[in-house]
Amino acid sequence: MEIERKFLISTDQLPFRPEDFPCRRIEQGYLCTRPVVRVRRDNDDFYLTYKSSGLMVREEYNLPLSPEGYEHLKSKADGRIIQKKRYEIPLEGGLTLELDIFEGDLAPLVIAEIEFPDEESAKSYQAPDWLGKDVTYSPEYHNSTLSRM
Amino acid sequence: MEIERKFLISTDQLPFRPEDFPCRRIEQGYLCTRPVVRVRRDNDDFYLTYKSSGLMVREEYNLPLSPEGYEHLKSKADGRIIQKKRYEIPLEGGLTLELDIFEGDLAPLVIAEIEFPDEESAKSYQAPDWLGKDVTYSPEYHNSTLSRM
Repeated sequence: MEIERKFLISTDQLPFRPEDFPCRRIEQGYLCTRPVVRVRRDNDDFYLTYKSSGLMVREEYNLPLSPEGYEHLKSKADGRIIQKKRYEIPLEGGLTLELDIFEGDLAPLVIAEIEFPDEESAKSYQAPDWLGKDVTYSPEYHNSTLSRM
Repeated sequence: MEIERKFLISTDQLPFRPEDFPCRRIEQGYLCTRPVVRVRRDNDDFYLTYKSSGLMVREEYNLPLSPEGYEHLKSKADGRIIQKKRYEIPLEGGLTLELDIFEGDLAPLVIAEIEFPDEESAKSYQAPDWLGKDVTYSPEYHNSTLSRM
């Protein structure tokens, strides 16, 4: 189960430099959007991901792929292949901010996600101002939607 | 985890009539074969299935699809779409025989599978003569291989 909130970021408002934190290169494409069936390269790991429907709460499975299986399935993706850098920034309370800086024709889009252990803490979380607009309930900021735009 | 043995059947050697047992109509296609990424229609249910590599023992996930998601992913399948009737026949010891009667250009192929709760019982199972040739370790009788032949 994945429980997360999502924010639209202006990088010039961040109180830190993303480059000071660990970074992964992510590439992903979508074979289906309802439900989500996605292939992702995460540095040198490859996954098939399935996500059930839903905005804040979704059931998620990440299943390993071979590099060849990834390339084969990627060739079947609809729309664009998304490329982004993901920075992991520790927050107070044991939370982690995943900061996604999109590349290619989705630049300069930046989206932040925070994953929570349960719905209560997700709903009650008081976001600092620099996190920008809360787009948790905006399907247009799902990566699956961005892949088709 | 799926632990199964597989047998090649001649229907004229069966000690029962398949039509006397419950039957489901199955249609399936493969998006990837290593690992297996499969879409299946099972009567009026639709699934995305992921299977890790392996012959007798494989990790398996069955994830629900919408009818539209199924049709969309099926259009991306490699090779042929497999259609078969599956009969479920109870065996001694609480086991179930799944008898797959293939249709279309794979006819008159018939394959039987027995699923076991653990590897020990799979290995020690004494198959009756009418079950025919044991093809558990023959990748050419995997449905994923049949989809490409």
